[in-house]
Amino acid sequence: MSIQTLTDQLLSGHRRSLARLITYVENDHPDAAEALERLYPHTGQAHLIGITGAPGTGKSSLVNQLAQAYRRREQRVAVLAVDPTSPFSGGAILGDRIRMTELTGDPGVFIRSMASRGSLGGLARAVGDALKVLDAAGFDKILLETVGAGQSEVEIAKTAQTVIVVEAPGLGDDVQAIKAGILEIADIFVVNKADRPEAKRTAAALKMMLELGHAPAHHLLRHSLLASLDQTSPYEAAGPAWTIPVLPTVAINGQGLDEVVAAIEQHRQHLLDSGELALRDRARLIDELETTLQSELMRQVIARLPADVLAEMVARLDDRSLTPQAAAQKILAAVGLAG
Amino acid sequence: MSIQTLTDQLLSGHRRSLARLITYVENDHPDAAEALERLYPHTGQAHLIGITGAPGTGKSSLVNQLAQAYRRREQRVAVLAVDPTSPFSGGAILGDRIRMTELTGDPGVFIRSMASRGSLGGLARAVGDALKVLDAAGFDKILLETVGAGQSEVEIAKTAQTVIVVEAPGLGDDVQAIKAGILEIADIFVVNKADRPEAKRTAAALKMMLELGHAPAHHLLRHSLLASLDQTSPYEAAGPAWTIPVLPTVAINGQGLDEVVAAIEQHRQHLLDSGELALRDRARLIDELETTLQSELMRQVIARLPADVLAEMVARLDDRSLTPQAAAQKILAAVGLAG
Repeated sequence: MSIQTLTDQLLSGHRRSLARLITYVENDHPDAAEALERLYPHTGQAHLIGITGAPGTGKSSLVNQLAQAYRRREQRVAVLAVDPTSPFSGGAILGDRIRMTELTGDPGVFIRSMASRGSLGGLARAVGDALKVLDAAGFDKILLETVGAGQSEVEIAKTAQTVIVVEAPGLGDDVQAIKAGILEIADIFVVNKADRPEAKRTAAALKMMLELGHAPAHHLLRHSLLASLDQTSPYEAAGPAWTIPVLPTVAINGQGLDEVVAAIEQHRQHLLDSGELALRDRARLIDELETTLQSELMRQVIARLPADVLAEMVARLDDRSLTPQAAAQKILAAVGLAG
Repeated sequence: MSIQTLTDQLLSGHRRSLARLITYVENDHPDAAEALERLYPHTGQAHLIGITGAPGTGKSSLVNQLAQAYRRREQRVAVLAVDPTSPFSGGAILGDRIRMTELTGDPGVFIRSMASRGSLGGLARAVGDALKVLDAAGFDKILLETVGAGQSEVEIAKTAQTVIVVEAPGLGDDVQAIKAGILEIADIFVVNKADRPEAKRTAAALKMMLELGHAPAHHLLRHSLLASLDQTSPYEAAGPAWTIPVLPTVAINGQGLDEVVAAIEQHRQHLLDSGELALRDRARLIDELETTLQSELMRQVIARLPADVLAEMVARLDDRSLTPQAAAQKILAAVGLAG
């Protein structure tokens, strides 16, 4: 089947071509670039919602309930579950998905999991491309769920328009430290397992941190190329600031879910009214541009670098007669890209 | 004070110059590069031990106990505690350190915490440089502790020679998924809080995953430059493979610590005997070389790129008439670095 037929089928709502195109971008198939080029003008309509949080918070149950809530509102929903910590596809995450029995067989829902393909950069690219395919396929809501804490959350923040951070009471000593980083990327906090006795304390601690934080929203996402544009920062959009809500839920029985759905819609409206939606989109696209630039430049350096120069550099790194920084300068000189 | 005086003082064991030089590399001080150049030939002696694991596993207590165990063995110990999820320096991690009252005032121990400086790349560089300073300062053991799970662990694996992954029983649903990723980087597993009833089950599950895993050790660390050397992979060293032990501890009272210390020494000996130590060092240095190359190449592109070309590219990204990948190709052509 030609790639044009495949993308045309996707745009007309054909389910099997959707699964196939995501496999293409996941495996970096030779036709993936052309497919993305064809689909690209049809993207930009879906609401990308990131859901993240530490292990044990009940993210998967929340995603499950959100998907059902959107189906009741007759919205088409895609779920992309990403595990940056696992090099194995499927597995544990697919196990979680099996719990979503209420949704199986519903043509308005598409569920897919992706695992690490050997590098975070490779995964981030594949996730970005899969989101474009889902967006072009006409889903109203795309729920991007990640397992794990840390850098993966920053990657989500780059990709999602609304970021939900899920907390739960009683996850141990380090939770406070992690929250400090999470403050930066959350648009909505959910305190799940809110029927536990310590839940109120967790919510109160989060609210206090939000008040004390004064953290410039999304400052982690400043880009060198973007910075060089010498214009207003994308995260200093006009209009009133967004007040991050802290919402209690009991995801396993759906308690508090309507409030989460309402907050997501309010955030989407805030992004539109303030102009921040367009600015976040721009920051994401420029980030993709930079990633492509870096990988292409490195490819050129490797292609131009004589094998004996590289071997000599490595020998001098081995015996510590040259620092990695000095070796980099010598390599740039050797390939004619110095200064 | 001249940078030469400062590095000479460090090499002669002067404590205050150590703290000052780490602040230099942390803040990217103009003199930091020269200091590292001077210290570089004196590095390569310390044993770099990474300790990582999910929140709530008791990593900090384990690090505390390990530091004390090494002091009893008359080894000089440095602890570098890194929080990649927090943009705030000090804070929660420093709070953890206050618990280490047994170690305060001991000149054979140096404790420092580092938080994210706005990007994971910037933090990884600063951590790598701080480790070089500590190494040159003559510490026998450097304990590199990270908070959080996910990509930060891969960063540790790149830097540490021996990676300890700390688990604890009963941390929730997602633990299995995270373990799948952790299998790749652990040299030693510690099941802390082993006095809890579910600890035996956690240890048994880990051992079963290790047997089933068959994961090629450290395959996440393959580098493009290294791959282009067309030689034996750094992680396919000669000699018998290392068998990853699973060790129970109760860190708060020191139970099981002697076994962990012994396993760390056995792993160090294995790295030396198999030649893997030199190969891991090489992979780490080449990784630093690549990071420097990438940042220098991006600097050049930005310097050469006419402002109107960048503005046009951004406008076309905004209206989705150009994909980020196509924009990257146009930018490379504009700065004379195409193909």
